[in-house]
Amino acid sequence: MPNRILWINPGRPPDNLNREFQQILDQEKRPDTVVEVVSTERGPRDLEYRYFEALVLPDVLHRIVRAEREGFDAAIIGCFYDPGLEAAKEVTRIIVTAPAEASMHIAATFGHRFSIIVGRETWVPQMMENVNRYGMKSHLASFRSIGLPVREMQADPAETVRRIRDAAQRAVAEDSAEVIILGCTMEYGLFREIQGTLGVPIIDPVLSAFKFAELLVELKKRYGWAQSKVSGYESPPAEQILQWGLQEEYGVDGLWEGTPQRRDRG
Amino acid sequence: MPNRILWINPGRPPDNLNREFQQILDQEKRPDTVVEVVSTERGPRDLEYRYFEALVLPDVLHRIVRAEREGFDAAIIGCFYDPGLEAAKEVTRIIVTAPAEASMHIAATFGHRFSIIVGRETWVPQMMENVNRYGMKSHLASFRSIGLPVREMQADPAETVRRIRDAAQRAVAEDSAEVIILGCTMEYGLFREIQGTLGVPIIDPVLSAFKFAELLVELKKRYGWAQSKVSGYESPPAEQILQWGLQEEYGVDGLWEGTPQRRDRG
Amino acid sequence: MPNRILWINPGRPPDNLNREFQQILDQEKRPDTVVEVVSTERGPRDLEYRYFEALVLPDVLHRIVRAEREGFDAAIIGCFYDPGLEAAKEVTRIIVTAPAEASMHIAATFGHRFSIIVGRETWVPQMMENVNRYGMKSHLASFRSIGLPVREMQADPAETVRRIRDAAQRAVAEDSAEVIILGCTMEYGLFREIQGTLGVPIIDPVLSAFKFAELLVELKKRYGWAQSKVSGYESPPAEQILQWGLQEEYGVDGLWEGTPQRRDRG
Amino acid sequence: MPNRILWINPGRPPDNLNREFQQILDQEKRPDTVVEVVSTERGPRDLEYRYFEALVLPDVLHRIVRAEREGFDAAIIGCFYDPGLEAAKEVTRIIVTAPAEASMHIAATFGHRFSIIVGRETWVPQMMENVNRYGMKSHLASFRSIGLPVREMQADPAETVRRIRDAAQRAVAEDSAEVIILGCTMEYGLFREIQGTLGVPIIDPVLSAFKFAELLVELKKRYGWAQSKVSGYESPPAEQILQWGLQEEYGVDGLWEGTPQRRDRG
Amino acid sequence: MPNRILWINPGRPPDNLNREFQQILDQEKRPDTVVEVVSTERGPRDLEYRYFEALVLPDVLHRIVRAEREGFDAAIIGCFYDPGLEAAKEVTRIIVTAPAEASMHIAATFGHRFSIIVGRETWVPQMMENVNRYGMKSHLASFRSIGLPVREMQADPAETVRRIRDAAQRAVAEDSAEVIILGCTMEYGLFREIQGTLGVPIIDPVLSAFKFAELLVELKKRYGWAQSKVSGYESPPAEQILQWGLQEEYGVDGLWEGTPQRRDRG
Amino acid sequence: MPNRILWINPGRPPDNLNREFQQILDQEKRPDTVVEVVSTERGPRDLEYRYFEALVLPDVLHRIVRAEREGFDAAIIGCFYDPGLEAAKEVTRIIVTAPAEASMHIAATFGHRFSIIVGRETWVPQMMENVNRYGMKSHLASFRSIGLPVREMQADPAETVRRIRDAAQRAVAEDSAEVIILGCTMEYGLFREIQGTLGVPIIDPVLSAFKFAELLVELKKRYGWAQSKVSGYESPPAEQILQWGLQEEYGVDGLWEGTPQRRDRG
Repeated sequence: MPNRILWINPGRPPDNLNREFQQILDQEKRPDTVVEVVSTERGPRDLEYRYFEALVLPDVLHRIVRAEREGFDAAIIGCFYDPGLEAAKEVTRIIVTAPAEASMHIAATFGHRFSIIVGRETWVPQMMENVNRYGMKSHLASFRSIGLPVREMQADPAETVRRIRDAAQRAVAEDSAEVIILGCTMEYGLFREIQGTLGVPIIDPVLSAFKFAELLVELKKRYGWAQSKVSGYESPPAEQILQWGLQEEYGVDGLWEGTPQRRDRG
Repeated sequence: MPNRILWINPGRPPDNLNREFQQILDQEKRPDTVVEVVSTERGPRDLEYRYFEALVLPDVLHRIVRAEREGFDAAIIGCFYDPGLEAAKEVTRIIVTAPAEASMHIAATFGHRFSIIVGRETWVPQMMENVNRYGMKSHLASFRSIGLPVREMQADPAETVRRIRDAAQRAVAEDSAEVIILGCTMEYGLFREIQGTLGVPIIDPVLSAFKFAELLVELKKRYGWAQSKVSGYESPPAEQILQWGLQEEYGVDGLWEGTPQRRDRG
Repeated sequence: MPNRILWINPGRPPDNLNREFQQILDQEKRPDTVVEVVSTERGPRDLEYRYFEALVLPDVLHRIVRAEREGFDAAIIGCFYDPGLEAAKEVTRIIVTAPAEASMHIAATFGHRFSIIVGRETWVPQMMENVNRYGMKSHLASFRSIGLPVREMQADPAETVRRIRDAAQRAVAEDSAEVIILGCTMEYGLFREIQGTLGVPIIDPVLSAFKFAELLVELKKRYGWAQSKVSGYESPPAEQILQWGLQEEYGVDGLWEGTPQRRDRG
Repeated sequence: MPNRILWINPGRPPDNLNREFQQILDQEKRPDTVVEVVSTERGPRDLEYRYFEALVLPDVLHRIVRAEREGFDAAIIGCFYDPGLEAAKEVTRIIVTAPAEASMHIAATFGHRFSIIVGRETWVPQMMENVNRYGMKSHLASFRSIGLPVREMQADPAETVRRIRDAAQRAVAEDSAEVIILGCTMEYGLFREIQGTLGVPIIDPVLSAFKFAELLVELKKRYGWAQSKVSGYESPPAEQILQWGLQEEYGVDGLWEGTPQRRDRG
Repeated sequence: MPNRILWINPGRPPDNLNREFQQILDQEKRPDTVVEVVSTERGPRDLEYRYFEALVLPDVLHRIVRAEREGFDAAIIGCFYDPGLEAAKEVTRIIVTAPAEASMHIAATFGHRFSIIVGRETWVPQMMENVNRYGMKSHLASFRSIGLPVREMQADPAETVRRIRDAAQRAVAEDSAEVIILGCTMEYGLFREIQGTLGVPIIDPVLSAFKFAELLVELKKRYGWAQSKVSGYESPPAEQILQWGLQEEYGVDGLWEGTPQRRDRG
Repeated sequence: MPNRILWINPGRPPDNLNREFQQILDQEKRPDTVVEVVSTERGPRDLEYRYFEALVLPDVLHRIVRAEREGFDAAIIGCFYDPGLEAAKEVTRIIVTAPAEASMHIAATFGHRFSIIVGRETWVPQMMENVNRYGMKSHLASFRSIGLPVREMQADPAETVRRIRDAAQRAVAEDSAEVIILGCTMEYGLFREIQGTLGVPIIDPVLSAFKFAELLVELKKRYGWAQSKVSGYESPPAEQILQWGLQEEYGVDGLWEGTPQRRDRG
């Protein structure tokens, strides 16, 4: 039975993005993986602001709950802010991961310190929270900004590559970074060129999240390991959701019906 | 001109709650404060789960944006998880605060270490993130759980008081806490009785958030101090919101129209 | 009954300073606040050195104990080193606060990271201790020095403003500070001009301490919250002070007599 | 071309151990993985002491350098102390990982906090260093000891299981652990039984290291990601090793000859 | 030329204490050390409160400045709170150390984690500041209180020993302490008996401070190493002290006259 | 009876090094100290790589075990990486120390923050681990590299001095360092010249380790203080070493025979 992974691009990204991601992931997947790339039915083009993240979060979580019912083994939240990752681990028992989580755990095994290349300085405070959440503060060499908002990153790829390479070089030379993480999924595919000239690992957040998801799915299927349900990831009880009429209020009729009684502990 | 403060109980709390909060706050307010208590038009009864928080967040943020247009000086997000506080500081220029933020800053000035009394152990991981976010880790003596979900807290106040007092006593005796914070707005009003017998400050999260908001409003009006807009709290540009049709998609027609061009830096 | 607040400028500051502070605070106070500005009867002109701080500390503490007897509701120790703040919370039950404590708690709610503008690099190690004591290390972007000792700060205000603005600008641009704290009470009143051009909140330590004190007094009067007396702020027993003849030795006859038995716990 | 992984049990473990590990890993491997289990030709039976670790380290490193020449894609150092992992990343360009590194990175994605079950309290200080090295301090709920040295762990598996289950239960109930890591490779295979009754993920360090190695090998082959060679993992120059006669002195003639000039940076 | 060390018991301790300390130190000193034990001319019997510490601080500092003029090579501030140690390093160029500083640096080399035995729980917050100041937080296993104020410690030595032994045993068994520090100079001389039965190093704060001072004096005389004067320990300029009339105000006529111009940097 | 100290230069350093160190230490020793400088019988010329450290470690530890049998009171591992220091404290009951441990504990008493001058950037990650292990992270101002491998340091001393002085000056001016530690024993003897012009303490790692060892030996002889044997430094049981034939396998026949049963706790 194949391992089914759902990649969710939160919001409504540029038209061709899902198609491109589908191609990339189909090409990179293990033989026994089946991957599907979707976005949400509404939402902003990118998640540069916390407001935009708040808007798409309910739809992302509902899509993941639905994915579990549809038999998916994992869902990946495709944005380097890892929006809703904690909430997603709460609502579901299937594997959920996201680019920042995966990239940092991988980067930390390849070097003592890594730098994260961001689009704009304004991203740093929220990403710093993720660095702390994942325990990676002592591994962080620096954030380096290239001064480009998300929507301009794929507009002039050559310029974007130039800026990333420059930022990465300075991170290595001035901040003692040993590994570089590209801090935006819109920087996908650019790592190869930069890695070749720089000589340090350049972690692509799309590929790292996808491969990490495949690993976690395998661990769950083989050994039953997945997010623990005894404390912070305890799922909300379906009965409460139904009784409070949340399905109707949020337009997700039937989503939570018939789900196993989800309260995990007494 | 009075200082207008909006207290938002996120979700749809028990019928009488808004009324009770309105009474309490009217009684506790400064002479020149006008306070209004509301909840959102839909949502869960409480926010015990991150999922519930995600559901109400867009409505809470939209209510705050509207509050700014209506001339409010501050909004308080009335839940000890401080849900959406960071996003709220991003979307608006009026003062926003919340119970955990206010309670911890106040408690830290009254003792070296404080304990937070929570309803259930499952709350701890998310609240620990707030402790870290506010820089209060070295001030935290412990979390102590009373084994009660939110909805049962006001059902049997005597039992709730008994459990809180017991937990607080153990926090003082065993964890060296010098101050106690009640870690749920549903524990409102219970502090006086406990404080009397225990002899340490018991911080009520409703009162601390409200009084802290009054302070911040005064600081903003007198000195122009408010959330900085140069980095992590930069507001999303209204033009983008309009152009992407987010108002229509999320049912908030006109909310962002005519707002000043909100992108704060070049 | 008005809230009576005592502002203590430790040592013997320039002649006009108390008068100027009295004017400022009278102008900024709440209607029901009465404020009195004093300095100690002896001591250095400023507290640039720990030695100077040690010299004035006994007189500051005695002034605060006397303030409690005189019916004051709060005392503010008017120096950004917050000299003796911990000891003051120990000797008295009235509210005590100080500029660094107040400024950092306020700044932390307005931005993820703040920078502190100091007069000289030599101040940093002691101030860093306060940053750690208040739990603000993760909120600290940087210290920035303007290379001016305290006594020269008000000599050429235009030059001082120029240097502060320059330091603040670099803190924002290079250290990712979102908020600026003026790290010396002698920088009072300069914030407005700088804030106007810089566009980030510039926290004035005199105003923040004063307004924070007003808040804490209100909290104490309304809710009985004040420094906890169960551990580190337990007051020394008056009987011991009397019996050991400390009043005579330190020239404070009668100061501790008739005070309630102050040992707070068995 | 298959992915060739070498599992090294450092020292001379009980006779059947390599055979058992070979069986387990053959059963758990991906289709395109070929795994070989070896131990060193001399050394202690277990690594309970740092001295024992020091003794086997040169042989372990030499075995890894040889593995690279033999075409292996990865080496796993099979002890939960991760002995020599840093040095191994230095001497080679093939993937190297070890049980503690792999288990902690995996556990951190499945729960906010994990506990590590150790054999004896004496292990804790060294393992705490690894917890800090991997950035996992904030994820650590506790160490829990079962009071058994390594050599007795497989002697009475039923008793060992009983003790681990008891320790794990207390970690969950008293230390708020959400995930359990078995802190010794000699606890291999016991996780299933415990996991079934406890209801939290019990991470087996052998399986996690093996699966993590497979992931890293895939990442290296596909994307060229591996330990960075620009700083702390820079390899020692082969020329120096040859010139200083280290091959002869340490009985590894020819090991370093003909290797590419390994100094990674100018 | 002998190394002259001044031991200062701050305040007015029990009559025989200086004599006893003189005997102990004379017995423990290096052949080329000359030691003198003094107390201040006024002050409390012990320093259980920050207020008491504030009272004696000016006299302690003045005694140290005088010691420098008298040709002493070092001064030891004889209280485990290390009162005024930072200020002392500022006012003088001779060596200054104190029991907590010395004991923690020594204990950290003898074990991964140490516990500090205090008289009362109320001491902990201030001592925790010293633990943090010296960078010893990760080395601290626990504070353990014996429930005795300073003045009762030498009243019934047998009972004190019994309590310390009990606290130390629990620190080893329950907190994983490997080394015990006696957290009060009034616990002097009790270590031997406890160490014999407990089997872990019990650090006597009097002896560790004295021996550490001898080391530092030797380092200064041989290599010129002493507290750095370029930043936080820069001495106050004598000219300023004289000009401001501080000598007269604080009754230390002539103390600062003729001292070398002490401002250390431009 | 004299205090016998063994200085071990791990590996085979340049021919004259042991002789020079012997001269220096004979000149610097206390009257009652006897010091002997040795190196191991095989090994690399320096320890620039972890691999080199791993190679010499067994011989270093065996030399220390032998030193204990020969009646030495202390052994010093003469490399600023402090290689094997933890393992050495485990295998023996005599005093063991090393340059980084000693230098950091001393430097921390002379200034709030110190910088460490290293030869190459590649050294930093491993040395950072030692900084963390000793609890010195908050005391670390910076690492500063002079871009010279160990073997070139004594080749052109004038150039080395010039680079160190330059690095030290920048550490003081730009990183707020108050004390400088020379981060390589090959920088021995250079401190005086630099200290003279820089005006801050320059800690020589050879002298600090030696003098610190003398102190610890005195503490052990007088008070019985040494590395605790109850947890992380518990020695391996000699019986196990003999029974497993480790003496034969590692060419140290008889080394462990007749040693007291070394398992320290039941």
